[in-house]
Amino acid sequence: MITSIPDLKEQIDNYLAKFLPQDIDQDTLRNSMEYSVMAGGKRLRPALTLATVELLGGTINEDILRVATALELLHTYSLIHDDLPAMDNDALRRGKPTNHCKFGAGMATLAGDGLLTLAFQWVTDNNLSADIRSRLAFELAKAAGPAGMVAGQARDIEGEHQRLSLEQLRYLHRQKTGALIQYAVLAGGIIMDQPAKVQQELAAFGANYGLAFQIYDDLMDVLGTTEQMGKAVHKDAAEQKNTYPGLLGVDGAKKQLHNALIAATQSQRQLEKLTSKSFAGYDEFLAYFK
Amino acid sequence: MITSIPDLKEQIDNYLAKFLPQDIDQDTLRNSMEYSVMAGGKRLRPALTLATVELLGGTINEDILRVATALELLHTYSLIHDDLPAMDNDALRRGKPTNHCKFGAGMATLAGDGLLTLAFQWVTDNNLSADIRSRLAFELAKAAGPAGMVAGQARDIEGEHQRLSLEQLRYLHRQKTGALIQYAVLAGGIIMDQPAKVQQELAAFGANYGLAFQIYDDLMDVLGTTEQMGKAVHKDAAEQKNTYPGLLGVDGAKKQLHNALIAATQSQRQLEKLTSKSFAGYDEFLAYFK
Repeated sequence: MITSIPDLKEQIDNYLAKFLPQDIDQDTLRNSMEYSVMAGGKRLRPALTLATVELLGGTINEDILRVATALELLHTYSLIHDDLPAMDNDALRRGKPTNHCKFGAGMATLAGDGLLTLAFQWVTDNNLSADIRSRLAFELAKAAGPAGMVAGQARDIEGEHQRLSLEQLRYLHRQKTGALIQYAVLAGGIIMDQPAKVQQELAAFGANYGLAFQIYDDLMDVLGTTEQMGKAVHKDAAEQKNTYPGLLGVDGAKKQLHNALIAATQSQRQLEKLTSKSFAGYDEFLAYFK
Repeated sequence: MITSIPDLKEQIDNYLAKFLPQDIDQDTLRNSMEYSVMAGGKRLRPALTLATVELLGGTINEDILRVATALELLHTYSLIHDDLPAMDNDALRRGKPTNHCKFGAGMATLAGDGLLTLAFQWVTDNNLSADIRSRLAFELAKAAGPAGMVAGQARDIEGEHQRLSLEQLRYLHRQKTGALIQYAVLAGGIIMDQPAKVQQELAAFGANYGLAFQIYDDLMDVLGTTEQMGKAVHKDAAEQKNTYPGLLGVDGAKKQLHNALIAATQSQRQLEKLTSKSFAGYDEFLAYFK
C-alpha cells in the first residue's frame, strides 16, 4: 500500500513541526528557521524519498522520516540564501515575505547556514546502519555542494546577461535543481540498501524528474500568475535569466519537458524489471506536470 | 614521535592545495573558495585533530588528513559569512581583502555554502570505518549547527548593544568558538576509536582550550595592532560587542584566560591517567597564549 502525496506531505509537516525546534538553541534563530521551513511548500523532495522507500517494499518510520525531512531543511536553506539581497533579492516566497525581509539579511544568512548544517545532523542521527548514514551524508553533500547545487547557483550568477547554449543550460539545471532531486530518489534506494544497478536507475529517474521539474518551473514563470505561484513571476525574462522558454520558446520548452518525462518513464519501467515490483506509484509525481 | 605545529600546518596546507580544487565544478566558485582557504591562517583546528591522533598513538595518513582539513573548510566558511556586509561587514581578513570585497557578496555567500557542505563530504568520503565517518559527521553538525556555532553567531548579533552577564558571555563563546574547537580535539578521539571516558576528557580539554582561545582573541583586539593581527582591531569596542575585556577589564580577562588554561591542563593530566600515554604534546598548543 503506497501513501498518497498529500498524506506524505502531512507526515513530513508533522515531523518538521515537532522536531525542528528541538535542535535550535537560540530564540530568534529558531523563529527564523521555523518561519521558512513551516511556510509550506509541496515537500516534493522528502515525498520522493518516502515514496521510493515504499515502492521498494519499506515502511515509513521516524528514522526514515528524519532522513527524508533533512532534505526539506536543505532545500529551504537554498531558497533562503537564493532570496538574499546579495543573490536574487526576492521579497516574496510562498506568498509571504522572504526570510531576510522578516528577520534581516544577517539572521537569514544564519538561518540558511543552520538548516544546511542540521540536514547533515539529521541524516547521521538516527537508527539506520552506520553504512547507510555515512553514505547518505556523502551523497547529500555531493549533490548539494560545490560539485552540485552550489556550483549550479554560481553558474547561474555568472551566466546572467550572457546567452547559454542548450547544452550549457541543461548542465546548469542538472546541478542547480537536478542534483538534489536525484539525491531525493537515490536516498530511498540507499535507505533500502538496494543493489548498485537499482540505485543507478533510481538516480536516472531522479535526474530526469529533476530536469522536468526545472523546465516546468521555467514555463510557469512565463505562463503563471503571482497568485498561483506565491512568488513573483515574469522575473526570469526581466533579469535576463537563462531559461528553457527564453532559449527555445514556450513550445520548444514544452517539447523538452515531454522528452524528460518520457526518459523518466523509461527508468520507471526499467526499475520494475530490475526489482519485479510496481513503480506505478511514481505516476502521481509525474502527473504534477500535466 | 609527535609532529610539531609548523610541520602539521605544512601537511594541512599541502593537502588543501591539492584536493580542494578537485571537488569544485565552477571556475569563479573555485577561485573564491580557494582564495579564502589558501589565505593562510594558523590551521589550529585541524592541527589539534592531527596532534590528538598522534598523542593517542595513531599515524597521520591521507584519510585522517581529509577529516582534519574538513574542519578548516568549515572554519573558513564561518569567517566568510561572518565578514559579509549583512553580518560584521569586514573588509580585511588575514591581511587581504575579505571574500566579498574580492568576489561580491553573492559569490562569497556561495563560497561559504560550498565550504560548509564540502566539509561534510570530506568527513564521509574516506577509508575510515562507516561508524567513525557517521559519528564524525554527526558531531561536526552538532558543533557547527543551530545548537552550536550558528546559535552562537545568532546570539552575538542579538547581543550587540546589550550588556551580557559573564555567564551569558561564556555561553555565547562556548557556542560560537568553543564548540568547533571542542570538536577538533574530540575528532582525534573518534578517529582513534577511544573509549567514552577518553572522548569526554578530550572534549573537556577542547572546550577549555576553546574558551582560552576566545578570551585571548578578545584581548588581542584590545592590545594588538592591525599589522600583527592581519585584520582590523579595536572593532569590538567600536561595535559595542560583548567581550571579556569589555566586561571584566584587561586584567579580569587575563585572569579568566589563566583559569581556562589551568582547567585545560587538568584535562591533560586526566588524559594521561586514562590512557597511560603522555599528552605533553598539547603544551605546544597551550604555549600559543603565553
